[in-house]
Amino acid sequence: MTAHTAPGEIERESMRIISAQLEEMGVALPPECREVVLRAIHTTADFDYAQNLVFTPGAAEAGIQALKQGVPIVTDTNMALSGINQAACRRLGVERYCYMADPRVAQQAAETGSTRAAAAVDRWAAEHPEAVFAVGNAPTALLRMAERMEAGELRPALVIAVPVGFVNVVESKEEILRLCREKNVPIIAAMGRKGGSTVAAAICNALLYQASPRPI
Amino acid sequence: MTAHTAPGEIERESMRIISAQLEEMGVALPPECREVVLRAIHTTADFDYAQNLVFTPGAAEAGIQALKQGVPIVTDTNMALSGINQAACRRLGVERYCYMADPRVAQQAAETGSTRAAAAVDRWAAEHPEAVFAVGNAPTALLRMAERMEAGELRPALVIAVPVGFVNVVESKEEILRLCREKNVPIIAAMGRKGGSTVAAAICNALLYQASPRPI
Repeated sequence: MTAHTAPGEIERESMRIISAQLEEMGVALPPECREVVLRAIHTTADFDYAQNLVFTPGAAEAGIQALKQGVPIVTDTNMALSGINQAACRRLGVERYCYMADPRVAQQAAETGSTRAAAAVDRWAAEHPEAVFAVGNAPTALLRMAERMEAGELRPALVIAVPVGFVNVVESKEEILRLCREKNVPIIAAMGRKGGSTVAAAICNALLYQASPRPI
Repeated sequence: MTAHTAPGEIERESMRIISAQLEEMGVALPPECREVVLRAIHTTADFDYAQNLVFTPGAAEAGIQALKQGVPIVTDTNMALSGINQAACRRLGVERYCYMADPRVAQQAAETGSTRAAAAVDRWAAEHPEAVFAVGNAPTALLRMAERMEAGELRPALVIAVPVGFVNVVESKEEILRLCREKNVPIIAAMGRKGGSTVAAAICNALLYQASPRPI
């Protein structure tokens, strides 16, 4: 067992190992994408994220600038929310929201027969239409987002589209990527089946740490 | 886009797709391990979990029986905690705990120079020494657990050892697996670097759903 025990030191050593393995694999990451990709791999130990993450040009920088201005982050699960670094959010004055447990969301879902994840997007549109939206779980959230963006009711500062799964997930990510490109909305997406709440949180953290370097 | 929208239906279709792909890969899962492996893949879309999960004989069944008796679940992160299905816990009378935000843990970590994850294990030993312990993040939690088990202060109903990472992670999982085998403590572990809070929660849920089938 190696002697790294301080969390900051462990993280630096982890990033060094990841970088070395990427280099061995012949992967050269553009500086803008580097921190996001490294942190997605760091949180999964899955090097597929070096290949499956896509960025519209300037997407990471748009996210960093938004967070520097205190734009809030909205997530589709409480799990993703709880993985987003609180200290970094406090330093930047960034609020974090998830509406999955909001009673109005449950009520709307029951009344309309939609998923709660989709109903939650209507709360996003009502309360934080220009937030950074991080979706790690629900393809129905991405599809409702696409509808709301088409209707001009949502104008995200950045879309993080990384739901995981086997049904409708691939298609929902392709649809939101197409729409974001059409509407010139910055997006970072994990194409294919992979993703998840930890990946959504890791991407938020990569942007937060670049917006406000950590005291480690 | 296919027409699956009800959450229960999406999940059944997902499990069917995963099962079919495992069959194509020539992977035959023993019935006891099947639900845990399927749900780890379901939460990551990563078929490596068909290979990297190991179980001591009877480990999944030991977890199911413990949960049926209302044994609590303790996790090393609030993220894992929030991924564990609350409705299933309520049906079984299973309480969930995470001590990472406990002020006593922060104080002990500061006084002793240990990680908070390791200090939290001392709270587990004091308050729930016979719980189901799910570790998705911190190798130092596994190593402290090993010390406390050696000292006879912890006797887990089940250890779920699935931290993710690049430093000390592989070694900590090998150490806790060795010790659990020696002490005849049931363990489910993700060998190698992979794992994470979502995987820890998924394994807990696989056991919870078998202990108390869901009304879907």
